[in-house]
Amino acid sequence: MIHSRYYTELDKYNQLIKKKNKKSGFYNGIIDRYENPVLTRNHAPLIWRYDLDAERNPFFMERLGINAVMNSGAIEINNKFYLVARVEGNDRKSFFAVAESSSGIDEFQFWDYPVLLPDTCPEETNVYDMRLTKHQDGFIYGVFCSESKDTKSSDLSAAVAAAGIVRTKDLKTWERLDNLTTLHSPQQRNVVLHPEFVDGKYAFYTRPMDGFIETGNGGGIGFGLCENIAHAVIEEERIISRRVYHTLTEVKNGAGAVPIKGKKSWIHIAHGVRNTAAGLRYVLYVFATDLNDPSKVIAQPSGLFLAPLGMERVGDVSNVVFTNGAIARDNGEVYLYYASCDTRMHVATTTIDQLEDYAFHTPEDPLRSSECVLQRYRIIHDNLKLLEDKGEKGAVYENQLG
Amino acid sequence: MIHSRYYTELDKYNQLIKKKNKKSGFYNGIIDRYENPVLTRNHAPLIWRYDLDAERNPFFMERLGINAVMNSGAIEINNKFYLVARVEGNDRKSFFAVAESSSGIDEFQFWDYPVLLPDTCPEETNVYDMRLTKHQDGFIYGVFCSESKDTKSSDLSAAVAAAGIVRTKDLKTWERLDNLTTLHSPQQRNVVLHPEFVDGKYAFYTRPMDGFIETGNGGGIGFGLCENIAHAVIEEERIISRRVYHTLTEVKNGAGAVPIKGKKSWIHIAHGVRNTAAGLRYVLYVFATDLNDPSKVIAQPSGLFLAPLGMERVGDVSNVVFTNGAIARDNGEVYLYYASCDTRMHVATTTIDQLEDYAFHTPEDPLRSSECVLQRYRIIHDNLKLLEDKGEKGAVYENQLG
Repeated sequence: MIHSRYYTELDKYNQLIKKKNKKSGFYNGIIDRYENPVLTRNHAPLIWRYDLDAERNPFFMERLGINAVMNSGAIEINNKFYLVARVEGNDRKSFFAVAESSSGIDEFQFWDYPVLLPDTCPEETNVYDMRLTKHQDGFIYGVFCSESKDTKSSDLSAAVAAAGIVRTKDLKTWERLDNLTTLHSPQQRNVVLHPEFVDGKYAFYTRPMDGFIETGNGGGIGFGLCENIAHAVIEEERIISRRVYHTLTEVKNGAGAVPIKGKKSWIHIAHGVRNTAAGLRYVLYVFATDLNDPSKVIAQPSGLFLAPLGMERVGDVSNVVFTNGAIARDNGEVYLYYASCDTRMHVATTTIDQLEDYAFHTPEDPLRSSECVLQRYRIIHDNLKLLEDKGEKGAVYENQLG
Repeated sequence: MIHSRYYTELDKYNQLIKKKNKKSGFYNGIIDRYENPVLTRNHAPLIWRYDLDAERNPFFMERLGINAVMNSGAIEINNKFYLVARVEGNDRKSFFAVAESSSGIDEFQFWDYPVLLPDTCPEETNVYDMRLTKHQDGFIYGVFCSESKDTKSSDLSAAVAAAGIVRTKDLKTWERLDNLTTLHSPQQRNVVLHPEFVDGKYAFYTRPMDGFIETGNGGGIGFGLCENIAHAVIEEERIISRRVYHTLTEVKNGAGAVPIKGKKSWIHIAHGVRNTAAGLRYVLYVFATDLNDPSKVIAQPSGLFLAPLGMERVGDVSNVVFTNGAIARDNGEVYLYYASCDTRMHVATTTIDQLEDYAFHTPEDPLRSSECVLQRYRIIHDNLKLLEDKGEKGAVYENQLG
């Protein structure tokens, strides 16, 4: 017999997943933000968490709670929006689950069953942060982080990370391929598969770690090619977006969403990390690469693209925004899915035209305060001239100028 | 032609900067707090952020966003209140800009152009946290942190810090002098120039770092004299406010606002830092020094003077309040400007009489829990006696006493 409390909780759940979303008051001309998150821990279906049977569960108690829903891959199939979310149980282990929406901004609903990945790596303890690539070869690839205990370290919490690779055509049946091997970097996180062949090969964005950095190559987002996706091996990685002193990528950076094909570039939305007295701060930034050579950076707009604001600032891991999924539609609309604080998922909307305007017309970072002020002086000077020409400046700024 | 969206955003901006402020419900008899911040990222003028031209900026997109407005020097000139704010662009570099208000508690408005500091140090990457001193010699001095990449470190994010010095008479034209040299401390942050000559010399509060601490002098707020402000060299620093175990200065401390001249002391509002599981916690504390010898501490009230509360707790660097500016008026009113979380500026008001009452009549920290409890016992005992004598205790405490 189903516990009567189930119906009370079901009402609340249905209200939540049917709640309409709308644009917030935020304005910067680049993206629109929204009032509500699109996925939270409360979006996890009741049947994932409760045993509904009144006899087995007289208190109608959560048997397997959900702690957070975050970093989601994103893909559009037949005009529907799909997120493959990182769902974290109360046990701290993550798994993947598909949520579906018709609008892309609200009413995301999880499928009944989470994704059952083939369990091919006995040492693998956790999986997370899947990027979904609709590849030219006809498959949808999921590239995710496969993490295991570092058995060589005396630190109980030390982990080693690799890029796991799966493929599917329907998000239901998943074939697992070999983990990615990068010959010059023993570990990988934040790996993204490019959607098109490059020189007839599969192209990956990587994040070389450990030895790679120590040997003088510096850190950053790497790029490498491989012949055979079923046994992917990258022999050489080149850094295409470097970490830079006193920028938002000072401590680390990594690829985010699968690059979006624009009219004149591949648009990359990545994350950058700096340190603060209160821990690391993750923000998003953008760069654009050549349509014919996606490893060649052709635009680097200055500064952050998106940072946590308001209620996004606080969560399980505060001061973090992170993306691993965006959807670019044929009509040029872009839906950027980002998590705040390893806790919940949000959406921001923009267009390919706006993203390319942003990428190509935001000035580059001159990297020194005094040159940044000069850069701003020029924009102020031109604006004041424009306002004076229109006879409008006086009204607004009169008092200050005295 | 000016983009039509400019007028929509201008309306929002004008509403913000004309918003009246009022005292919050907070009471402790020492300071009054206010409902709204006095400066935020949204106070940055539109002409700093947008190119207003509709052709050059068809989406009316921020070209140079502002991330935060924080740690501000403060000064009163001809009955107007001026803040020289640390403004942080989306590129993470800071610069200085003057904001002006008639009330000191609201309607702060930035001047059209930020401060253009003479660019005399080619290696200088960032500048921040200017203290404004109205000096006996007739100049207004700005002492700020000048930060450069530590080229000797293999850590990409390592920086070295020095105290930069500028002077002005009108906050418009700034003359840059040599950076401060402290012979026994290779780095400096949080340096403050005392407003009067001491023994005929310029007197600085410093924060010795590195070698100074290792050689057994301990950390804390230092004090030193120099002859020539144009080429300032401090040969000797003495610690006047030490870091102490299990107090709010356990990890570090530093001078804050320029000392306020009271009736019987120089009043110092400084910051203290302790560590927590969620990173460092910055609060403000007070001490008073001798009117004739500003390096001689004559009052050390126990504990914190101001800590983040409510919405002040969260921001880019959470759990931080910081001050580098206060205005003491001839009528005895004091306006303390403080930033929360490296994100926004607030004001608190008090008087010189209140500050000296606080400094001299708050008991000193006995440094051990058991003695702190006894200290509190005594105040409770005296209060109960007073209430009993007036026959008021029963009414108030009956229920608790049972």
